[in-house]
Order: sequence, then structure tokens, then C-alpha cells
Amino acid sequence: MSDAKGAKQDPAEKARRVKAADGRVYFSYAQIHAAVSSMVPKVKAFKPDVIIAIGGGGFIPARMLRTEIKVPILAVSLKLYDDATNTVGTEVEKVQWFDETSGVGKNVRGKRVLIVDEVDDSRTTLKYCVDEVKKTNAPAALAVLVVHNKMRPKAAQLPSDVEYMACEDVENFWNCYPWDAAAYGRDIYAHEELARQCLKVPLLIVNFTTLILILLVVEALTVALLYKKTTKEKI
Amino acid sequence: MSDAKGAKQDPAEKARRVKAADGRVYFSYAQIHAAVSSMVPKVKAFKPDVIIAIGGGGFIPARMLRTEIKVPILAVSLKLYDDATNTVGTEVEKVQWFDETSGVGKNVRGKRVLIVDEVDDSRTTLKYCVDEVKKTNAPAALAVLVVHNKMRPKAAQLPSDVEYMACEDVENFWNCYPWDAAAYGRDIYAHEELARQCLKVPLLIVNFTTLILILLVVEALTVALLYKKTTKEKI
Repeated sequence: MSDAKGAKQDPAEKARRVKAADGRVYFSYAQIHAAVSSMVPKVKAFKPDVIIAIGGGGFIPARMLRTEIKVPILAVSLKLYDDATNTVGTEVEKVQWFDETSGVGKNVRGKRVLIVDEVDDSRTTLKYCVDEVKKTNAPAALAVLVVHNKMRPKAAQLPSDVEYMACEDVENFWNCYPWDAAAYGRDIYAHEELARQCLKVPLLIVNFTTLILILLVVEALTVALLYKKTTKEKI
Repeated sequence: MSDAKGAKQDPAEKARRVKAADGRVYFSYAQIHAAVSSMVPKVKAFKPDVIIAIGGGGFIPARMLRTEIKVPILAVSLKLYDDATNTVGTEVEKVQWFDETSGVGKNVRGKRVLIVDEVDDSRTTLKYCVDEVKKTNAPAALAVLVVHNKMRPKAAQLPSDVEYMACEDVENFWNCYPWDAAAYGRDIYAHEELARQCLKVPLLIVNFTTLILILLVVEALTVALLYKKTTKEKI
């Protein structure tokens, strides 16, 4: 069921991203923000009473959402351990949970809850979080929002009564998020320039530097030709 | 003491920001990220064991920091109520706290703790959070990091044993953060374009569009002049 969700997106949408020279795909903050914003109508339709952000990845998209989805954010932290094969993490550890008897924690039991995370990779963390919220806090309704759903086989399935929203379905590449820029040895401006290059634009839109170079060449050719013409006529 | 900190920044730095036509100052994600990154050496020198992000504003800078400051993030939520005069909020409500007996919560008592928030406005929320962490969780050392310190009179003072780090001192203008773009009726790309305009650049750096226009004009003039010359010589 959940794997089929990767197919719902228009294939033309997917094709717009290209890999950078290092084989990875870079994303800018604005691209992430725009992807999150595009899901606002669907989130509003779900009518959440509270957002649970899975930290640290879910913190940024959850805060992006909150400007339009005016409900409080609770934070939980989970840690996904890699198994022996070092491919897909299988063990999840609860690093921080919330107290449902105080403050916003009261907005979970019997209420409509939206869980937010950055990327749905193997789906293991999401599944763990969904199960924990259901078991520990018994919400009335549960939905999950991820910025990116990686189109790859999933190690876990979400229960069928959990609404699943992916802001964008992305290919199973190495995705580089802007908050991790330093981890790739770049400052944020260099990272965001790469992100712009990865977002393929129609062929007719050349970048400004190229346009200036073309104009300089045209200018030089014009001068050369007209100068030649003038010189010839003089002779 | 804490007010004097607004003066430590080079005045030339401050002057680089200009208001947009609507009198507000816009910030892009990259500008916020760069400001946060600039504080990494100072944060590393403090050697925090854990970050406490004050949500929702602290979530984004805390996550930005974590790529280089590899310590776990705990989230707390506080709500600052406006008082009757509707100028400076005076009442703070604890919306979410953490459990210090489980998970990362154990990294607070007797440890080095960095509290992160987006903006130090009246300092009331920061002061409340610092007092609560000290009283409830007794850390060994406490520091505070804010993206922006508004240079205005503060309604509260931080204890002198708390290290204070402001990534940037900003004037007391209406600052518009990228995650709030929709609240100002703009999509993120329009917001970030305004942010670029608010960051004054040296006069010699003209933007690409202007450069192309200048080149087109030079090209047209050259053609016109050389054509005139050719025509004259023919006569």
C-alpha cells in the first residue's frame, strides 16, 4: 500500500531534479519551504489540533508549517540505529517524549495529531513514532507529513487509518539538505547555488552569467566585423 | 550589563541592513543560516552537552547549529503573553518541558547547556527559560544563543554567570523571518528576494539584470556608431 504512494506523483515533476557533479541532489531552504507550503491545503483539510515534530529533522518543516497551520508544536526525538549490515536502521530509541498531562501535551489524547519529519527513507522511524503515539497517547486521528518521500522499498508499513502526506516524492538519491551544508564542507550560499543547479529549468532559461558571456561575444564579433568592413572600404 | 552587549558589534555591520519599502526588514534562510554558522567557534568553545531549543522560534536555528555542534536537541515551548498595554509580553506560560529522568533529558543536570532562540526582543522569554532550567534542572553551566539581539531596552536581565551569544545585533525594526513568509502574504521566493534587497551590497556590485542592460546599450551604440561611419565613408 505505502509503496504504491510513490507512484501518485506526476513523473514530469520528478524529472525536474538533476544530480550535481558529485552525484548528489542539493536542496535549498526555499525549495523545502515551497514544498511544505504546497501541502498546506491538505493539512488544513485534516484539521490537526497539534503537530508532533520528530527532531531534529522535523523541527524545520514543522516550524515552516506552523505559520499557516496555527497549532502548537510538540517535539519528540527518536534515534534510528543502523543494523549490522549498515544499510537500513532497524532499532529506534526514544530520546525525548512529551508529558501528556501538562501544557500542549493535553492536545494529543483524543485529538487530531499530525506527525512531521523531513524524509521518509526506510519508513522505520515514522512507523515507530506512529505506533508509539497510538499506544501511549491514543489520538482520535493521526496523519503523517514528510517533506520528501524517497521512492524506494520500505522496511515498514503505516497502519491504513493513518493519512500519509509527502510534500514531494523524490528519487532514491543522496539528498543534501541545506541545514547540513557544513557537513558537505560548504557554506550555505555555495550549497544553495548547487540546489539551484539541481532544479532543472526549461532549456530556454540560461543563467545570467552565460547570457552576459553570449552578449560579450556578440559585441566583440560585431565590432570585429564592422571594423573589417570599414578597413576594406578604406583600401 | 546585558544591554551594553548591543554595543559590541561593529556599527558598520549594522548599517548594511536597509528597510524594505514597507518599513520592515526581511531575512532569508541563507542569511539566518550564515549568521548561526558564524557563531559556531564560540559555541564550540562553550562545549555544550545538550541544546535546549525554545520552540517554535528556536527549532530552526537549533537544527542549523546541530550539524556542526553534534549534541542532542531538547525542545521546550514557552508562550509569552502580551500585557494589558500590548507592548511587551510579561507573562510566560510553560507549554512543553522535558523529562530529565529519561533519554537526553539526563544531559541537563550537572551538564553544560546551550539555550537557543530566534530573537532576543524584551529578553523576558529568555530570562524565564534560563531561570526555569537553573531552578528545575541545575545545569553545571548555561549559555544562551539567539540569532538576533534587538538593540532596545530589555525588560529583564540574565544572570551574570550565563554566557550570552547573539549571532547578530539588529536594530529595533519589524524583522520578517523566512518561516513567516505566508504571514506577510508572500511565497518564500518573493520573501527571499526582498531579503536580498534589504542586505545592502557595495555600490560597485550591480546586479546581473542591470549588467545585461548596460551591455545591450553598449552593443547598440557600437553598432550605430560603426554603421554611421561605414555609411559616411560610402558617400
